[in-house]
Amino acid sequence: MSETGPSACVLIIGNEILSGRTQDVNLNFLATRLGEIGVRLAEARVISDVEDDIVVAVNSCRARYDYVFTTGGIGPTHDDITAASIAKAFGVTLEENPEARRRLAELCAKNGVELNAARLRMANVPRGATLIDNPVSAAPGFRMENVFVFAGVPSIMKAMFEGIAESLAGGPPVLSRAVTAYLPEGTVAAPLSELQARYPDVDMGSYPFYRAPRYGTSLVLRGTDEARLAAAARDIAAMIVDLGGEPEVEPAD
Amino acid sequence: MSETGPSACVLIIGNEILSGRTQDVNLNFLATRLGEIGVRLAEARVISDVEDDIVVAVNSCRARYDYVFTTGGIGPTHDDITAASIAKAFGVTLEENPEARRRLAELCAKNGVELNAARLRMANVPRGATLIDNPVSAAPGFRMENVFVFAGVPSIMKAMFEGIAESLAGGPPVLSRAVTAYLPEGTVAAPLSELQARYPDVDMGSYPFYRAPRYGTSLVLRGTDEARLAAAARDIAAMIVDLGGEPEVEPAD
Repeated sequence: MSETGPSACVLIIGNEILSGRTQDVNLNFLATRLGEIGVRLAEARVISDVEDDIVVAVNSCRARYDYVFTTGGIGPTHDDITAASIAKAFGVTLEENPEARRRLAELCAKNGVELNAARLRMANVPRGATLIDNPVSAAPGFRMENVFVFAGVPSIMKAMFEGIAESLAGGPPVLSRAVTAYLPEGTVAAPLSELQARYPDVDMGSYPFYRAPRYGTSLVLRGTDEARLAAAARDIAAMIVDLGGEPEVEPAD
Repeated sequence: MSETGPSACVLIIGNEILSGRTQDVNLNFLATRLGEIGVRLAEARVISDVEDDIVVAVNSCRARYDYVFTTGGIGPTHDDITAASIAKAFGVTLEENPEARRRLAELCAKNGVELNAARLRMANVPRGATLIDNPVSAAPGFRMENVFVFAGVPSIMKAMFEGIAESLAGGPPVLSRAVTAYLPEGTVAAPLSELQARYPDVDMGSYPFYRAPRYGTSLVLRGTDEARLAAAARDIAAMIVDLGGEPEVEPAD
């Protein structure tokens, strides 16, 4: 597939995902939205609330990818160490951001709670960072060079992403189409491989499924050129007919 | 928390997760089951169907963690490159495993499909690997030293894991308990931090939530000593009462 668009990595920071207590849903949201705006999600990592691990992952990924998005660890409690870890990764100090403090103070006044030391921690960002708006609960995320730091709570993460989405330099949006048939994967494999060779600009993925009582295969085509996707889908459908199957072509995104 | 048990990393191999098309569920299953048998899941990565990326991730993770579990990429199609990539990571050849071939031939005969070249690819494993049973669809996974290679289809992945679970040298099972209260995170943060300092052997995580119309915080305690967990939960509940909240203690796992 065309890999001309900028690349991205998602870092999910949080013991609750690694312990199995929480099913992550942020990755799927970010993967989908990044594809829509033409940013290629190349990798994701789930790492624990350990400063050294965060520093190593952030530095490795920000050097390798055009964008890094982190989720989690920017709340007021002792296990929220993302901001301090990002500062360490960049070799800068963590400092209170006056605008972040102002927003927190405003929310606390509105909610009648004290702007205590714990809540004030959420105003700390690495020196040089710019704030990312949090329209849900005020405590901002921040951007540090090519690293975007979001909350872990899905509704807040989504709002933060939408706030910065337009600032990302995307490539052409990645389009997809799926052709499904009740044929086993091992039957479509060889002709599919030939088609993939003829369409180097279309990524062809093959995913087996079971819908009782039948097994089938979903062939997913991804690429940035609508006409090429359509041509590949037609050839895939013809291949399925040749193999004795009945193709079901899903409309493009 | 006590980190005496063996460590593990999960590598999720597959463009379908990174494209957002598929919501991964394998990580949550593995995280939960590993915790139950006392293996600490320290990291997870989602990587694409690119040989170099798989080689780098496998070699990095197998050196760092006691166990590595991969999911995905062991089917019959051109995008299934996990076995070849693992062989490359270990510097060994990929070769047909006679027992794997026998199992595939048996299934094909039963299903009346041809054991063609594509299906035969699923009999290829790195030299020195041992097979992991696949009670669902015959095509085996394999183990290469501390790397366990599973299918990506959740039902098959689960069956493969259960087949090898007893062979893992686990530490004491990780127990957990949650104490929930309708108090904002910023209110519990300071006393929680003091309690965490008093219980270095209990990992205390704090997770805000919103259940209309109220905000609250879920405090999750994890550790291997039931008595210490119970004591910590009692202290957390007392802390919540002191703060004017009503603690709800979830029974231990």
